[in-house]
Amino acid sequence: MNFLEERILRDGVVKEGNVLKVDSFLNHQMDVKLFDQMGEEYAKRFAGKPINKILTIEASGIGIASVVALHFGVPVVFAKKSKSINLDGEMYTAEVESFTHKTINHVIVSKKFLGPDDHVLIIDDFLANGCALQGLIQIVQAAGGTVEGIGIAIEKGFQAGGRMIRNLGYQLESLAIVEGMDASTGEIHFREQS
Amino acid sequence: MNFLEERILRDGVVKEGNVLKVDSFLNHQMDVKLFDQMGEEYAKRFAGKPINKILTIEASGIGIASVVALHFGVPVVFAKKSKSINLDGEMYTAEVESFTHKTINHVIVSKKFLGPDDHVLIIDDFLANGCALQGLIQIVQAAGGTVEGIGIAIEKGFQAGGRMIRNLGYQLESLAIVEGMDASTGEIHFREQS
Repeated sequence: MNFLEERILRDGVVKEGNVLKVDSFLNHQMDVKLFDQMGEEYAKRFAGKPINKILTIEASGIGIASVVALHFGVPVVFAKKSKSINLDGEMYTAEVESFTHKTINHVIVSKKFLGPDDHVLIIDDFLANGCALQGLIQIVQAAGGTVEGIGIAIEKGFQAGGRMIRNLGYQLESLAIVEGMDASTGEIHFREQS
Repeated sequence: MNFLEERILRDGVVKEGNVLKVDSFLNHQMDVKLFDQMGEEYAKRFAGKPINKILTIEASGIGIASVVALHFGVPVVFAKKSKSINLDGEMYTAEVESFTHKTINHVIVSKKFLGPDDHVLIIDDFLANGCALQGLIQIVQAAGGTVEGIGIAIEKGFQAGGRMIRNLGYQLESLAIVEGMDASTGEIHFREQS
């Protein structure tokens, strides 16, 4: 078991409906020393890749991405979420349908900050159905850049996002992959990773 | 002139209506090495204070706060912004009126993550009229915590927020204080700081 899995077992809370609350250390209160360990781990897993930019999405991806970026020595760009679309032509916009909420969201990045020379590591806190992630990949492609890899803190392995992204050939590294949870016992079961 | 003022002169863009665009390094694309320098500087300016938590607000404060927090060895809590109020009693909520947009916003933090034992450093990217900052101070007080200081990247010194906060007795450290800008020439004038 790695450091993040141990932390999830210690401080994560399982709620009804396959909800895993990690707001005490990951996405409301943030343990930046843990993020630093995550950065060290991603640096190992993506060693040798010509990464020159990290892309994430507001709000909870920003803290992790910023600390991780120190390990790569590269800047971070964060995508904005909006219900409305920006049509001024200065923005890359991806339309993504939320599987959970059945709503359309837009993921937006200024054209100034992504281009054909960018070799991008995408970082986010959670991967479930992968809607936000699909929007981020779409935007890197629209910019002519290259997705060098995807680093996720917690993947819900029982939802479709991770399998779909791996099937597309991307190097997706999730530090913890939850295979199942039980709200009545609080039990969390992780996928074995080598 | 300090490192942040130099960077603003190099990469900031002055727009009509006293708008200073710093989205290439501070609040859309983020230069985390610059944030690291900022963390070092805040650590000096707030040395000796018993800071055990950093509080910021989504979205653009999160990246700076996370990297700065590494210099203090403390966790970050980020407040959420919402148009609607949460009445479930588990959240501290401050109502703040936006001077610029004449709208009411709510600043929200879970009660789990702020309490009487917290000695808080508030970090944000911009200070103009100080509406968001007033909400954050209000929330720390509601929690019974102590505001040990406030670290801002860029203060608009010609707007009222900074003076008001200093008049209330808070140690407010803005790394760059803009006294005036000229959109036609691109000139930016900073307040002298010792």
